[in-house]
Amino acid sequence: MKLNIALLAGDGIGPEVIDQAVKVSDAVAAKFGHEITWAPALTGAAAIDAVGEPYPDETHDVCVAADAVLFGAIGHPRFDNDPSAKVRPEQGLLKMRQKLGLFANVRPTFTFPSLIEKSPLKKERIEGTDLVFLRELTGGIYFGKRGREDNDNTAYDTCTYTRAEVERLARKGFEMAQQRSKKLCCVDKANVLETSRLWRETVQKLEKEYPDVEVSYEFVDAVAMRLVQWPNSYDVLITENLFGDILTDEASVISGSMGLMPSASLGEKTSLFEPIHGSYPQAAGKDIANPLATVLSAAMMFETAFGLQDEADAIRTVVNKSLAEGVVTEDLAEGGKAYKTSEVGDWLAKNI
Amino acid sequence: MKLNIALLAGDGIGPEVIDQAVKVSDAVAAKFGHEITWAPALTGAAAIDAVGEPYPDETHDVCVAADAVLFGAIGHPRFDNDPSAKVRPEQGLLKMRQKLGLFANVRPTFTFPSLIEKSPLKKERIEGTDLVFLRELTGGIYFGKRGREDNDNTAYDTCTYTRAEVERLARKGFEMAQQRSKKLCCVDKANVLETSRLWRETVQKLEKEYPDVEVSYEFVDAVAMRLVQWPNSYDVLITENLFGDILTDEASVISGSMGLMPSASLGEKTSLFEPIHGSYPQAAGKDIANPLATVLSAAMMFETAFGLQDEADAIRTVVNKSLAEGVVTEDLAEGGKAYKTSEVGDWLAKNI
Ligand SMILES: CC(C)[C@H](C(=O)O)[C@@H](O)C(=O)O
Ligand SMILES: CC(C)[C@H](C(=O)O)[C@@H](O)C(=O)O
Repeated sequence: MKLNIALLAGDGIGPEVIDQAVKVSDAVAAKFGHEITWAPALTGAAAIDAVGEPYPDETHDVCVAADAVLFGAIGHPRFDNDPSAKVRPEQGLLKMRQKLGLFANVRPTFTFPSLIEKSPLKKERIEGTDLVFLRELTGGIYFGKRGREDNDNTAYDTCTYTRAEVERLARKGFEMAQQRSKKLCCVDKANVLETSRLWRETVQKLEKEYPDVEVSYEFVDAVAMRLVQWPNSYDVLITENLFGDILTDEASVISGSMGLMPSASLGEKTSLFEPIHGSYPQAAGKDIANPLATVLSAAMMFETAFGLQDEADAIRTVVNKSLAEGVVTEDLAEGGKAYKTSEVGDWLAKNI
Repeated sequence: MKLNIALLAGDGIGPEVIDQAVKVSDAVAAKFGHEITWAPALTGAAAIDAVGEPYPDETHDVCVAADAVLFGAIGHPRFDNDPSAKVRPEQGLLKMRQKLGLFANVRPTFTFPSLIEKSPLKKERIEGTDLVFLRELTGGIYFGKRGREDNDNTAYDTCTYTRAEVERLARKGFEMAQQRSKKLCCVDKANVLETSRLWRETVQKLEKEYPDVEVSYEFVDAVAMRLVQWPNSYDVLITENLFGDILTDEASVISGSMGLMPSASLGEKTSLFEPIHGSYPQAAGKDIANPLATVLSAAMMFETAFGLQDEADAIRTVVNKSLAEGVVTEDLAEGGKAYKTSEVGDWLAKNI
């Protein structure tokens, strides 16, 4: 297969971890007889510096032309203490999601037996956790009308959802549940919000098209609790944009393997794959960041964007091997040898 | 002092746990020479059954006339699987908050050394946690305009805040921080929401009036993570209604002492005190529910509504004693003797 992949390294540790994912992807491609063309493009603070825009039109064109997008991380401390800055890296993220139509953010949380001790939760609570959130990513209060009134003394934001938006996301959830444990949880606040009632209504209507999937409906506050108490009681969860923002981040820390968690943002045409960790500026340029989340995001890309399951499995197998053999960066070294970011990447590529 | 307290027992275990708080309050009043008049009134499913309304006008009048409101719990499973039911117990809750102007929900999360093993978190993560959330309770997306458009195919909810609403809540937060560790965290989503930017702006302006308080600003998704990772790094947190709904529930389960957590909802005139646990219908009528959260809510009432610190301390002391001596309900019995709800209440009243 010929694979044309847009490569958005972004800020902070983005470029370093992306480099390793490129090495590993190239190794997989060589092994299975594919040919990858990488199309690098600017995003985030790097793009603001170069062209004054966090998601420039040229970058968008590169993404649209590609078969998939591999993304590092964006964000720079220079913008952090200045919420009123005119141009901010995050705006690039939101613009990218909207322009590429990345409507479904797929965020798995699973455990690695060798890392379970790193979880803030007790072992018996976290063991066996393997859940996945589908967060709606291009609607809701993120993209509704907002502004000020009454002489700047009143502010408002509007959360809006259409039935079609909910249905599109929900169908992905049902399909994913069918491929997993056939359990789907719809997370909303239907006891208060009209948009949540639309969500619930729409999902309820879809139930009969997926009779093999068992659907439950839970309020967002209850889920925020149960994620800490019994995370392994969940399988697939679907939810709207803002609830998803909060809950996926909460879920990401319970496993103790946050530095290893990949994600996908699915669009109708193009999809994007990225580690869930941020740009981690303190570590930038030091060749110490853990590249595994980005490498595992590449695995999701092979599987989801290209339908290449064996290639994805080959990546996951070599990642597990690196963990088992202790070829890991300092965050996982536990007193053993700490490998450099680039050394881990080289080792993975060689052992694929 | 003459104390006139509205007594809203509500549904499920509400009446049972309220009974114990009444016994303990009466014992404290007798000891310190106060005279309590209890004014019972209907709320929740109980009120729907009696008069077709979850927060009847007569109940409101009783609350307005009282010096404070002591509240049990509302909610009944009969309404749970029917989100479209015309009248629901939760509506009573929202109406009560709005009509009584209960603008600040105070939700502490702290640990009891003897219960720390019950936390889903590892001991070293949860030890020493003592934080308090101030959740705005009468504004935001809970009370904004909502509806359907486009032939019922689009739903919307509006989140609105005025500077005055934010300031009122924030001042309570600053004052509370001054009485504690002088650390205040403002939780928002200012990188996306206009209402959050108003929050941040308003809090920033107040900073100079409280120079002894160290203020930090964190995004709601980051707080959802850090609450699980390092809960003891927080002191006072202020936030808007919906974020508060999610985060206070998340915070409530980390300590392992959810059944013991009290709360207050402060108004300009009247304030309300209630356990954070729900109506727990499975246990209703069995005399097995843990009354300590309600008893500790009564302690908050003496302290906050009446300024009676010694009385509050007396209640907290006797609660600690009951825990130390194992005079506890089955949820805390750990293989030891399980006392009945009413027995715990009797013991507390006698030992005050
Ligand atoms: C940076 C921010 C706008 C973004 C979001 O809220 O979606 C981030 O938190 C995320 O989850 O990707
Ligand atoms: C029952 C519901 C409307 C309510 C809320 O969302 O405020 C509850 O979750 C709470 O936190 O008291």
